[in-house]
Amino acid sequence: MTTKEILTQAKQAKTALAGLTTEQKNLALARMADSLVAHTAQIMAANALDMEAAKDKISPVMLDRLMLDEKRIQSMADGMREVILLPDPVGKVLRREVRPNGLVIERTAVPVGVVAIIYESRPNVTSDAAALTLKSGNVCVLRSGKEAFGSANAIVKALRSGLKDAGLSENLVNLVQDTSRASATELMTAVGYVDLLIPRGGAGLIRACVEQAKVPCIQTGTGICHIYVDESADLSMALKIINNAKTSRPSVCNAEEVCLVHRAAAADFLPQLKTMLVDERIAAGLSPVELRLCPEAAKLIEGVPAGPGDFDTEFLDYILAVKVVDSCTEAIDHINTHSTGHSEAIITADDGNAAAFTAAVDSAAVYVNASTRFTDGGEFGLGCEMGISTQKLHARGPMGLEELTVYKYIIRGDGQIR
Amino acid sequence: MTTKEILTQAKQAKTALAGLTTEQKNLALARMADSLVAHTAQIMAANALDMEAAKDKISPVMLDRLMLDEKRIQSMADGMREVILLPDPVGKVLRREVRPNGLVIERTAVPVGVVAIIYESRPNVTSDAAALTLKSGNVCVLRSGKEAFGSANAIVKALRSGLKDAGLSENLVNLVQDTSRASATELMTAVGYVDLLIPRGGAGLIRACVEQAKVPCIQTGTGICHIYVDESADLSMALKIINNAKTSRPSVCNAEEVCLVHRAAAADFLPQLKTMLVDERIAAGLSPVELRLCPEAAKLIEGVPAGPGDFDTEFLDYILAVKVVDSCTEAIDHINTHSTGHSEAIITADDGNAAAFTAAVDSAAVYVNASTRFTDGGEFGLGCEMGISTQKLHARGPMGLEELTVYKYIIRGDGQIR
Repeated sequence: MTTKEILTQAKQAKTALAGLTTEQKNLALARMADSLVAHTAQIMAANALDMEAAKDKISPVMLDRLMLDEKRIQSMADGMREVILLPDPVGKVLRREVRPNGLVIERTAVPVGVVAIIYESRPNVTSDAAALTLKSGNVCVLRSGKEAFGSANAIVKALRSGLKDAGLSENLVNLVQDTSRASATELMTAVGYVDLLIPRGGAGLIRACVEQAKVPCIQTGTGICHIYVDESADLSMALKIINNAKTSRPSVCNAEEVCLVHRAAAADFLPQLKTMLVDERIAAGLSPVELRLCPEAAKLIEGVPAGPGDFDTEFLDYILAVKVVDSCTEAIDHINTHSTGHSEAIITADDGNAAAFTAAVDSAAVYVNASTRFTDGGEFGLGCEMGISTQKLHARGPMGLEELTVYKYIIRGDGQIR
Repeated sequence: MTTKEILTQAKQAKTALAGLTTEQKNLALARMADSLVAHTAQIMAANALDMEAAKDKISPVMLDRLMLDEKRIQSMADGMREVILLPDPVGKVLRREVRPNGLVIERTAVPVGVVAIIYESRPNVTSDAAALTLKSGNVCVLRSGKEAFGSANAIVKALRSGLKDAGLSENLVNLVQDTSRASATELMTAVGYVDLLIPRGGAGLIRACVEQAKVPCIQTGTGICHIYVDESADLSMALKIINNAKTSRPSVCNAEEVCLVHRAAAADFLPQLKTMLVDERIAAGLSPVELRLCPEAAKLIEGVPAGPGDFDTEFLDYILAVKVVDSCTEAIDHINTHSTGHSEAIITADDGNAAAFTAAVDSAAVYVNASTRFTDGGEFGLGCEMGISTQKLHARGPMGLEELTVYKYIIRGDGQIR
């Protein structure tokens, strides 16, 4: 099928969703999860072909992300079953007002409609996205990266079979059959078909969407996250938090990329930071963190001089850019200039600086004395998530089920005129 | 100043807003309103030049919209003072969660940042927009239509003088000094400067924004509003509501443009509709409504045969397109195909049809047994408004102060790591 045909069938499927009860959606999720497990052999066979074709083309880390085995398929099914337990956001009355003329005005949560998701090589995004969009009453149009297409196609076949088992339209979950750049562009410009586009991927995809999208679009996931160590910081707390934010999982978007240190704390703090991130890690046989230092920091510790791009790069690696600042205000300005708007933290004992930082830093999640690694649907108590929005309109930070709905006003009267 | 310079000064002014209290903002609104009245002579002089230059170029209706006198300037100032009384949305904690690890997560309403508004010839939009953006903690960049530029410039000078009187930065309210098409395009593509673009104008402007905008954009105001008269409708109620929705103010976006009638009601209803909208209006010396009829309707009453575009046109005039449908489902499908997503109504005594209609019609405001004319910030109890959003993300329907904010997560801990 062409992408246009898939978009047309997705648009038509919207009407099938309008009247579905929570029970019907939950039954479908259960059947989809069952079907995923029942199709394990087919999914693994398709995945083996994807792995074979990709093995010389992508990095070992990417290959590992692509790989599926029985355990991972089981865990994808478990992820879908968890969505059954989450509350249904659709139909919730967000605000209710009875006007003096008797009109009853209800602001009511409704599905967005057709949600298109452009992603890369992680096959589990396929089942996660299908589960979240279905539970929130949306139709999804998925567009997988080339490397994972065979796996995604096998997964979507299993999910559609589950939808059919539950007596629903298979067209609630759709996979674009074309992985060329043209199909991504087609989704970005499908005005009247795509109600919301969520690109999940690297900086290049996000940039392409900002440049080309004519449909509403939510950017996700790019995180140049900062931690600012204030003059008044408890330095042992700062070390513990930075160790966690930088080294617990450097490849994720909520990992720290930049450390800002107040000048008054730098001489005491930076040597300890270097000991922890470099010397102790080497001694323990772990990857040391490469420190890319501003000239001021370079006077205090050893490291690599920071290049011009180092304060604007999402390293996703054991690399940390370090800069000495003169004040909390300079830290805030630096962050608002260089951040991608994901997650930032201040480590401080000064309530005034904490308040100034949380008020002025313009990012989705702003922390006081905690690790940026908590920016995650599960950690925020939202259940699983569709991605972390780094833009401002509609949704910011982790996007759970509620963030996949919009609202409309339903107004009931008995003949009122104005 | 160039548009780029204005955008830069607006972006810089954002920091001045972060720490403002409600009292400071309200004081500024009061001073701005006072200054507007104090500058009445200058504003009227500028407006007289605008009127003189426009008098042979725009319609009498548009000329009337452009005209300012003492009373209208007073009423603009009163509008600003009303905003003082509205609750401050900024800083409101929308959701608070204490996690098992002790993290306190607050979803908090914050300003969007720089809000750009492209509008046409109504000078009062200048003061309304400035008041709403200031109260919601935003900086505004206004871009007036060419015909109203002199008036808008005089108004903005008065408002900036009021800001100065209140001890705030004048750059919280900015007017683009260039009314060429290029300046509109510059606002649409000012990534990193404009956080939200609100085009307020006709279909051409909206289309240009959808095509060209690279910044987040909320479409407002185009309303092809439908009223569906169900088989079970109380016909006298239907007549009263349609009379209101079509004739009370045909030039506004929440006026009815299309009437759908169930086949079973058509023979009884349509002759009464024609009597009311045509014959009785002529007898009373009022403009009759031109009825543009589908072939089925044309068998029942006199009127003009509907042309191919008549069900996709915002007439904003004494014109009503009329179509006979076979079912509530056909009415819903017609609306979801032809509507701009503004406001629609069903007139019915059947609760099942009312529920089906409100569930399936995908518009900002969906009415049961009431006039579409109520879609308005004041009528919804939101105070005044920035426009009526006809798109789905972020805000739908009337946009008041709350809809000019976004949220961020503020997370407070005492050293938590993941």
